[in-house]
Amino acid sequence: MKVTVWTENVQEKQDYVKKVYPDGIGGEIAKFLSEEDDIEAKWVTLDMPECGLDDETLDNTDVLFWWGHCAHDKVPDEVVKKVQERVLLGMGLVVLHSGHHSKIFRALMGTTCSLRWRDHEFERVWNMAPYHPIAKGIPAMFELEDEEMYGEFFDIPKPDDVVFGGWFDGGEIFRSGVTFTRGAGKIFYFQPGHETNTAYYNPYVRQILKNAARWAACVTPRTRLDCPHDSRTTNAIRESGEEIQGF
Amino acid sequence: MKVTVWTENVQEKQDYVKKVYPDGIGGEIAKFLSEEDDIEAKWVTLDMPECGLDDETLDNTDVLFWWGHCAHDKVPDEVVKKVQERVLLGMGLVVLHSGHHSKIFRALMGTTCSLRWRDHEFERVWNMAPYHPIAKGIPAMFELEDEEMYGEFFDIPKPDDVVFGGWFDGGEIFRSGVTFTRGAGKIFYFQPGHETNTAYYNPYVRQILKNAARWAACVTPRTRLDCPHDSRTTNAIRESGEEIQGF
Amino acid sequence: MKVTVWTENVQEKQDYVKKVYPDGIGGEIAKFLSEEDDIEAKWVTLDMPECGLDDETLDNTDVLFWWGHCAHDKVPDEVVKKVQERVLLGMGLVVLHSGHHSKIFRALMGTTCSLRWRDHEFERVWNMAPYHPIAKGIPAMFELEDEEMYGEFFDIPKPDDVVFGGWFDGGEIFRSGVTFTRGAGKIFYFQPGHETNTAYYNPYVRQILKNAARWAACVTPRTRLDCPHDSRTTNAIRESGEEIQGF
Amino acid sequence: MKVTVWTENVQEKQDYVKKVYPDGIGGEIAKFLSEEDDIEAKWVTLDMPECGLDDETLDNTDVLFWWGHCAHDKVPDEVVKKVQERVLLGMGLVVLHSGHHSKIFRALMGTTCSLRWRDHEFERVWNMAPYHPIAKGIPAMFELEDEEMYGEFFDIPKPDDVVFGGWFDGGEIFRSGVTFTRGAGKIFYFQPGHETNTAYYNPYVRQILKNAARWAACVTPRTRLDCPHDSRTTNAIRESGEEIQGF
Repeated sequence: MKVTVWTENVQEKQDYVKKVYPDGIGGEIAKFLSEEDDIEAKWVTLDMPECGLDDETLDNTDVLFWWGHCAHDKVPDEVVKKVQERVLLGMGLVVLHSGHHSKIFRALMGTTCSLRWRDHEFERVWNMAPYHPIAKGIPAMFELEDEEMYGEFFDIPKPDDVVFGGWFDGGEIFRSGVTFTRGAGKIFYFQPGHETNTAYYNPYVRQILKNAARWAACVTPRTRLDCPHDSRTTNAIRESGEEIQGF
Repeated sequence: MKVTVWTENVQEKQDYVKKVYPDGIGGEIAKFLSEEDDIEAKWVTLDMPECGLDDETLDNTDVLFWWGHCAHDKVPDEVVKKVQERVLLGMGLVVLHSGHHSKIFRALMGTTCSLRWRDHEFERVWNMAPYHPIAKGIPAMFELEDEEMYGEFFDIPKPDDVVFGGWFDGGEIFRSGVTFTRGAGKIFYFQPGHETNTAYYNPYVRQILKNAARWAACVTPRTRLDCPHDSRTTNAIRESGEEIQGF
Repeated sequence: MKVTVWTENVQEKQDYVKKVYPDGIGGEIAKFLSEEDDIEAKWVTLDMPECGLDDETLDNTDVLFWWGHCAHDKVPDEVVKKVQERVLLGMGLVVLHSGHHSKIFRALMGTTCSLRWRDHEFERVWNMAPYHPIAKGIPAMFELEDEEMYGEFFDIPKPDDVVFGGWFDGGEIFRSGVTFTRGAGKIFYFQPGHETNTAYYNPYVRQILKNAARWAACVTPRTRLDCPHDSRTTNAIRESGEEIQGF
Repeated sequence: MKVTVWTENVQEKQDYVKKVYPDGIGGEIAKFLSEEDDIEAKWVTLDMPECGLDDETLDNTDVLFWWGHCAHDKVPDEVVKKVQERVLLGMGLVVLHSGHHSKIFRALMGTTCSLRWRDHEFERVWNMAPYHPIAKGIPAMFELEDEEMYGEFFDIPKPDDVVFGGWFDGGEIFRSGVTFTRGAGKIFYFQPGHETNTAYYNPYVRQILKNAARWAACVTPRTRLDCPHDSRTTNAIRESGEEIQGF
């Protein structure tokens, strides 16, 4: 399967992030995803032509990972619209950390996706859905020594599954791993991954993101987003021996 | 409670609709809702200043009803954004029939809200959630002699509740009454209500829309849509005797 | 509305509980619920005839509160079956604290309802669904100085709403307030309420339980639990002018 | 993966069923499932020792299929309890047609699972979740010329997904394919499959049941159903270098 990892690559060019992720956040994620035989991952960035999301790239993307933070507004609305349509047609989407406030995630959720936040906190991530493919191989709880605190109320629609829940030393909780379905597309949001912390080196985080890539891959792509219309009834269409138009 | 009924009022000015709804679709809905002692309903339209949705009107709206069809694109994006924010802050929203393709419904759902359709069909509406406040007083099934067929696949996120299901004589089914929560706002979508049919005179449809108005009224309004931030932990804030910032 | 508060009244007779709840846990709950003009609450116990749940009592119960701990197995299966049927017919049910392991809650959930636990912990209760009627009047967070820790994984079916989330000082999180629908009945489970702690004197806990009583009251009672059968089609029944049998 | 197909095998011994399913309903299902390279299916019946569900058989079952009709009450409660525990520990369960009223399905649902019914009807099955693995390869709609009508209201808890919806010529609709999660176990209920009809020869029905077997296979088995307890906090356990007990 083909994964495209999109990051805005703004803070990633600065020394304070480079010392944590010398290959870039997106580079690091693409690297560890590609360790898997069945995953081929490529890193693209905001400063590329068409924000790195030209049609050829999207045609070759089963699942898109998205990490953005300070440049959400730099992503043109038409790119957001194109990506949203791809998701509705069946492309998987994994939204990471500060991507909660990205245009694409907000467009797909319909809410503000706002949350409580604070830098530098010890986090425990609890496994709340051991039945879920994304939780495969993850223990009852794992820890992140230093992560950005994201706390409730998290303004998202009710998720299909709350796979992980965060406990923060300072007193907060969070739905840290949540899934959604939109059209033919599957979406996973995962809270850890602040630019100055080391979450993407954590073996459990890596396992979760590998699981997420496989889970989010499309089952059955749609071929259209408009409204099928036929002036004949389904009964009449079928009597004539024709098939019913799909999705 | 205060209900504002918004309709685009385009086809409603034409004779073929006027002969069914001489007071306009919105006028008729506002009239029957206002029969209830606890509901005060007002009709506003697209051709009014600010599309009838100025701040004073919205400040006096507990629940907004929305009927549009051929002029979805005439609603400016900034009006859509304003209404969406009101919903997230707690205003109820009842989206009617062809409003499935309105900008506001699509913005709140994040999907295309596309569906299969065909004019003039006999419909049975089955009560699939007798436990739900919107189904209060509605029998196991009721009929609409002539209604527009809307059929699956309906491209919406998973609803909180599927309250009503439609059976169409021509061979289709539909999730005809569905609820959603977005932020502090409650949303109900209801399929019957084509401009040349008489659904809004049906006593069960009227009961459903009265129930929906009461159900969608805000429980606890939010006061902000951004992300609360404090550099102190919740533990530290509380030790200092302060309250935690709300939503 | 009429509330019946059932408790097993075993530990409640012992001094170590009596010094916290001199009127019994059930007595205290019935007392504060009855402060509301629209609520009339009565306390019944396991040691009464028919476990306090005779038909006359249940006929006069809109919402049943349930607190049990060490005597779950003393409740006869036929009483559990009777209460379960009442819930499916429309009686509301509020299950408190250690009632998570009661026969009635497990029968309605279909799962073990097991959870992680430990005595004596500081808890923060976060408001995760400010839109929900049960959260009305509850701030973003409130605290319980000393409560029993219940932690994830909580083996329940996916709730309709997770209204409250618990943060525990010792490192755990929990879905502390969750709602379910079963048949025509609404169910709320609420985690605080250990027999040696003072949760039921906390003003927010009291508000939540008053809200829950009102929310859980039946909207439309069912009249049967079996399968409606007619050898005629719905089309044929309706052509004959008859109504369709209900639920 | 290993599938065990359980049927009660009572009507299956009678000529009126044998002429449709000469190898038994369970035999036919086991046969077509076994056509797949990755599925090894075996048929067991009520009249075998321990109802065909001895520990060795269950130890070698990834997914259990269940077809029963007139002998639900013949399945002993202890067998139901054992199967329920296996599901909660991670065994998949596919409940077929009249199995809606089986003890095992009702125990896992907590509701009556009652529904409206009538023999001999033309059914259309609509694909309502093209994104779901169980819908893979299934078109927008397919037909069953003669099937038992099951109609709403279907007294089940809210499903995780409504994958298929049934339209019946006589005027009814039904949630014909629904999924649930209980503990670590995944459950799929599928409505077609009356003993005198030919649903299990339909290529789409076969595809759906093959998909369901793969979907329902356990991701992560649980090892316990009781409540993990440690008198030490999670913080203290972790400081001592120990792992947290799982589910």
